[in-house]
Amino acid sequence: MKKTILVASLILSLVFTWLPAIANAAERVDIIIRGGTVVTMDGTSRVIENGAVAVKGERIIAVGTTSDIAAKYTAARTIDAAGKVVMPGLINTHTHVPMVLFRGIADDLVLMEWLQKYIFPAEAKNVDEQFVRWGTRLGCLEMIQGGTTTFVDMYYFEDAIADETARAGMRAVLGETVLDFPAPDNKTWDAAMAYAETFAAKWKGNALITPAIAPHAPYTVSTDHLKQTHSFSQRLGVPLVTHIAEDQAEVKTIQERYGASSVAYLDRIGLLDERVIAAHMVWPTSDDIITLAKRSVGVAHCPQSNMKLAAGAAPVPQMLKAGVAVGLGTDGAASNNDLNLWEEMDTAAKLHKFTSKDPTVLNAREALEMATIRGARAIHQDKDIGSLEGGKRADLIIVGMDSAHQTPVYNIYSELVYATKASDVETVMINGRIVMQNRRVLTIDERSVRVKANEYRDRIRKSIAAQ
Amino acid sequence: MKKTILVASLILSLVFTWLPAIANAAERVDIIIRGGTVVTMDGTSRVIENGAVAVKGERIIAVGTTSDIAAKYTAARTIDAAGKVVMPGLINTHTHVPMVLFRGIADDLVLMEWLQKYIFPAEAKNVDEQFVRWGTRLGCLEMIQGGTTTFVDMYYFEDAIADETARAGMRAVLGETVLDFPAPDNKTWDAAMAYAETFAAKWKGNALITPAIAPHAPYTVSTDHLKQTHSFSQRLGVPLVTHIAEDQAEVKTIQERYGASSVAYLDRIGLLDERVIAAHMVWPTSDDIITLAKRSVGVAHCPQSNMKLAAGAAPVPQMLKAGVAVGLGTDGAASNNDLNLWEEMDTAAKLHKFTSKDPTVLNAREALEMATIRGARAIHQDKDIGSLEGGKRADLIIVGMDSAHQTPVYNIYSELVYATKASDVETVMINGRIVMQNRRVLTIDERSVRVKANEYRDRIRKSIAAQ
Repeated sequence: MKKTILVASLILSLVFTWLPAIANAAERVDIIIRGGTVVTMDGTSRVIENGAVAVKGERIIAVGTTSDIAAKYTAARTIDAAGKVVMPGLINTHTHVPMVLFRGIADDLVLMEWLQKYIFPAEAKNVDEQFVRWGTRLGCLEMIQGGTTTFVDMYYFEDAIADETARAGMRAVLGETVLDFPAPDNKTWDAAMAYAETFAAKWKGNALITPAIAPHAPYTVSTDHLKQTHSFSQRLGVPLVTHIAEDQAEVKTIQERYGASSVAYLDRIGLLDERVIAAHMVWPTSDDIITLAKRSVGVAHCPQSNMKLAAGAAPVPQMLKAGVAVGLGTDGAASNNDLNLWEEMDTAAKLHKFTSKDPTVLNAREALEMATIRGARAIHQDKDIGSLEGGKRADLIIVGMDSAHQTPVYNIYSELVYATKASDVETVMINGRIVMQNRRVLTIDERSVRVKANEYRDRIRKSIAAQ
Repeated sequence: MKKTILVASLILSLVFTWLPAIANAAERVDIIIRGGTVVTMDGTSRVIENGAVAVKGERIIAVGTTSDIAAKYTAARTIDAAGKVVMPGLINTHTHVPMVLFRGIADDLVLMEWLQKYIFPAEAKNVDEQFVRWGTRLGCLEMIQGGTTTFVDMYYFEDAIADETARAGMRAVLGETVLDFPAPDNKTWDAAMAYAETFAAKWKGNALITPAIAPHAPYTVSTDHLKQTHSFSQRLGVPLVTHIAEDQAEVKTIQERYGASSVAYLDRIGLLDERVIAAHMVWPTSDDIITLAKRSVGVAHCPQSNMKLAAGAAPVPQMLKAGVAVGLGTDGAASNNDLNLWEEMDTAAKLHKFTSKDPTVLNAREALEMATIRGARAIHQDKDIGSLEGGKRADLIIVGMDSAHQTPVYNIYSELVYATKASDVETVMINGRIVMQNRRVLTIDERSVRVKANEYRDRIRKSIAAQ
């Protein structure tokens, strides 16, 4: 009798030992990240304690508890995330990345003095293809170190920016800026549009880079030219990135010129649709907000930039309520002065409590959504990024949770939005590739970037002093 | 002839070689920090490239160029600060330090729900002497890591907080909180005042700790009791720390109860003088601001806490214009949720640009002054701390300047306020003692603090769930 039980239990134990192994053999993946608190940001806001993420190639295969994932998958490589958070990479919905080379060049000034005395002369004298290459390297370095995996850019020489961004292993929507003035890369409208066409054709379909057209703003691009950019966006199926309703001066100009608010005017000329990513949107009317929702326009909210330039506070709670897709952006480092989305989350949550006179407005989870899944919706890529779900692109970050400033942890969303810093991000994966491991960026040579940035600083200083 | 010249130049060269050495021998100091950009925050806002600071015992002996200091002093120990900034330690003019153990316990709530459902029950059930000891260790750890060298506290069991703060090597003004309700440490007014008396007598004259009396607020302490605290402050020569005009509800209550604004009421009863440190001051009238300046009251401005709790924006530009000494505070981590003055500087500069609709308001240098020399004035210790000047206490920090998010550097104040993070602080000296070196805190055992904080978290969670 005892012998029978012994044999039976031996058989059972063999079955239980081998079954998972057989199942595992059936599905082999590249990387399993396990043991962490997985903050999925999915439709049900699932948070999985002792969770795991299985990654194969460029995509997430599955998300679940560590034991579930271990039962179904084996991997060549496992990463232990015990005591850490595994979450989607952050999405910076608005920046001008090469402008990091102008970081802090001129602060605490009124917009026109800032632009005309510093930024325009500095750009005219210094911005060329090499400038944007080094600026993009520096900007990508900072963004990767802070857990940003996707950004939306508006600048010049976007083909070079695309090249450097892809080398850094980052995901981006890159909008070649076109406007009714000579730009550092193209001196005429037609040349700029031709450049954009070549650029878009070259990068369309790339796994990381989404080329886009970026008419600067409704007050710097004529109605005819704006219509051209919309046709371009439709014809090539690429996003249209622009600034809308950034400050009251713009709204006044558009009202005087076209007899309508910025949003109403752009809607009248047919610009607004589900390919548009509109930065700032500080001054939409209630009707404008309805229009934005109806046209599925994505909005990039830049709270720190808007405060620093005294532009105002965008009506974010109202836009969210109306169903507008609102993400977070840093704006360029010449105005903000960093590319840190942790601080934008924190500021957004606090700013809208303050302006609404209601501390329950824009809670921590909503602020984190704006930096992840809502940001993905704002840039029209929520099918692919913004949350940790099987089938999506493997864009994720591992965040340490045991710094003194994070201790102790009661609520994971509060902790991430109000206490966690960019320096707590440890490991960054974009499109299945690890680009930062234990705070070492693997795709960019940090030292050469620093040396070159300082050279540019010296040169730029001289160029401004000489004017 | 040639020989004479040779001999003469030999003598001369000997004189020039030995003169500095003889001078050096005359003044030997303990530590020289050299080769850095010294941002003094002194009366002339002197910034010294390739500068040095000589420290002897608890004080700064001299500040100058590296070559000047090398010519006049020798030191047992030198610290190379090349490529880094050497500046005064930051001053946190308002916090409740042990509340770090409640960090993130309840956010995004209206004040009364937050207080009555979470904070008061959690405090009643958990706050004892051991709690404040571990909370102070955790809080000091976070503050030292972020370059804060002095803080102003309001809590209970301040004698234990003083003991832990002194062990951590930090400077602090510690206000024993007294109010017309039973507190975790003292159940009656008389017991609390007796505790404060013993506490003040014990610590008065300590090089690091300034004991203080802290009547909670004008709406939680009766007029008679407030007058008692003022006599206490006068008699013992200690600061009086309190909350004044934090939100509109308070202002309304005081108006109804006493027929005056909070400031006017407190002035009428004789509370306001050059020993008062008043936190928040969100809602002073124009007349109140004149009173604050006339009475030399120091103000602790807490921009992030005020925004998060939707209390409002203090009229900081107006207070500064009127000559009121305004510093920066984080408030407690249960509301804010960290003790990070870099983010308070950044937020203060942006918030007041936004509310003033003027991007030139509260420039980077002024924001940095609020965290250093103006903060020292606000806590009435500017003769001793807040700037790097010969004769002052040696409270200073060395800040790395080569992170990607800081690169490149055009303007040192912009860089420190808008781009530098707490994680860039490398070395911290308080009262001549190095308490953090290359990011390793030497005075607190980080691991034991983390373990204990998590134990408290588990216990506190249960105590709230059980109510």
